[in-house]
Amino acid sequence: MSRIGIFDSGVGGLTVQRAILEALPSVDTVYLGDTARVPYGTKSADTVTQYSLRNARVLARHGIDLLVVACNTASAVALPALRAELALPVLGVVEPGARAAARATRGGRIGVIGTQGTVASGAYQAALHAARPDAEVVARACPLFVPLAEEGWTDPDDPVVRGAVARYLAPLVEARIDTLVLGCTHYPLLRAAIARALPQVTLIDSAEAIAAEVRARVADEDGREGVHAFLVTDTPEKFLAVAGRFLGRAVTSAEHVDV
Amino acid sequence: MSRIGIFDSGVGGLTVQRAILEALPSVDTVYLGDTARVPYGTKSADTVTQYSLRNARVLARHGIDLLVVACNTASAVALPALRAELALPVLGVVEPGARAAARATRGGRIGVIGTQGTVASGAYQAALHAARPDAEVVARACPLFVPLAEEGWTDPDDPVVRGAVARYLAPLVEARIDTLVLGCTHYPLLRAAIARALPQVTLIDSAEAIAAEVRARVADEDGREGVHAFLVTDTPEKFLAVAGRFLGRAVTSAEHVDV
Repeated sequence: MSRIGIFDSGVGGLTVQRAILEALPSVDTVYLGDTARVPYGTKSADTVTQYSLRNARVLARHGIDLLVVACNTASAVALPALRAELALPVLGVVEPGARAAARATRGGRIGVIGTQGTVASGAYQAALHAARPDAEVVARACPLFVPLAEEGWTDPDDPVVRGAVARYLAPLVEARIDTLVLGCTHYPLLRAAIARALPQVTLIDSAEAIAAEVRARVADEDGREGVHAFLVTDTPEKFLAVAGRFLGRAVTSAEHVDV
Repeated sequence: MSRIGIFDSGVGGLTVQRAILEALPSVDTVYLGDTARVPYGTKSADTVTQYSLRNARVLARHGIDLLVVACNTASAVALPALRAELALPVLGVVEPGARAAARATRGGRIGVIGTQGTVASGAYQAALHAARPDAEVVARACPLFVPLAEEGWTDPDDPVVRGAVARYLAPLVEARIDTLVLGCTHYPLLRAAIARALPQVTLIDSAEAIAAEVRARVADEDGREGVHAFLVTDTPEKFLAVAGRFLGRAVTSAEHVDV
């Protein structure tokens, strides 16, 4: 049986785990949320790389066969360091998301939204150009989207939501993109508001894209129900209070770890 | 000559340092911004206390005579641990802010806004009741205010700002407060929008309140210009890009430290 390690800066990566478990219900998982250091998206590539390596070392000690970096920012900046250090396959969300967008686009005008760290890294832009060399890519950091999603302010009719979405997405409307990568695990929670601001645009959720890639590498086992462990770096209480909403199933225990 | 150590979760504490330097231009300061772990306001009291102790140990090695905890969240949860460990005076922003509000209120109806950690700790509520036992206190966490301030979205005419401020402050309007404590270092940047939503209400900036208390303990030295050092836990570049705006004077160098 396979055991997949997954880490994220906090709870958002549970949306990636959810997509993986929908594709592969039988696998075991160990999820690490670095809730004591969240968010990664506003921090430097060096710091995010150091935190990613520490998270990966903890997960490696749990006997995983495959590491999924669920955090877009960590995927954008830390994959080379993770692959250099770990003796197991490491998958990030950036390349699967970029490939899915390159397949979906009609006219090659692709938008990417993410954290400041993800956008500044240029990782999505590079992956999109690798997958579709003639793509025109417009990337935009949307720093308010994570706090809006965490506050539960996601209603497309909410004037605060509508105003923030319209302001961030204006350059993408202007550029007449036909496909948009939601390059942060929190953004699917704002999907309805984003879709309203960008009608006719195909939205790519990188959680679904990476789940398809994991499915291609790992065998499912009919009838088996996977076993799932959760590790967090801040106290477990706050994680447990919201984890079920992100994962789509009950999370009843999580262990505190120092990394 | 006195050397004052100041720490905060990030750059916001520079507004506290600014108020201290306006009151005491001759003192030397060492400022530590824990930019690799920012924010503190969404994290547990245990984690914030551990980070606060590590920050204080670094500053103590720089030969400070007095420690100012500029972060409201750390002031709300970590002062007992800091005072137990350090052999020097430790001042937080909560008690000075609460005392200033207790002096300013006419009818004793006092509001407090801050991070989730600050509000959940009950520290302002307790300090206000200690300073004015008959006070009626209404506290409200405003998680979007820090990202709004960092994004520079602070214009009172901005519909996103107006909407977020109106929603968070509605219970305070309802409670007919006459005084409001801005219990987070970022909130003074939203002062104009907050004042518009709460006309007739006296706004208390805890940065100014703690500067007055430091002034009462430390002698100024006529004509001397203090020397100021800056330490950060993430890379210095991002700190240097915004530090001047918060401090109100140029910040040209900062040193990276691991804590």
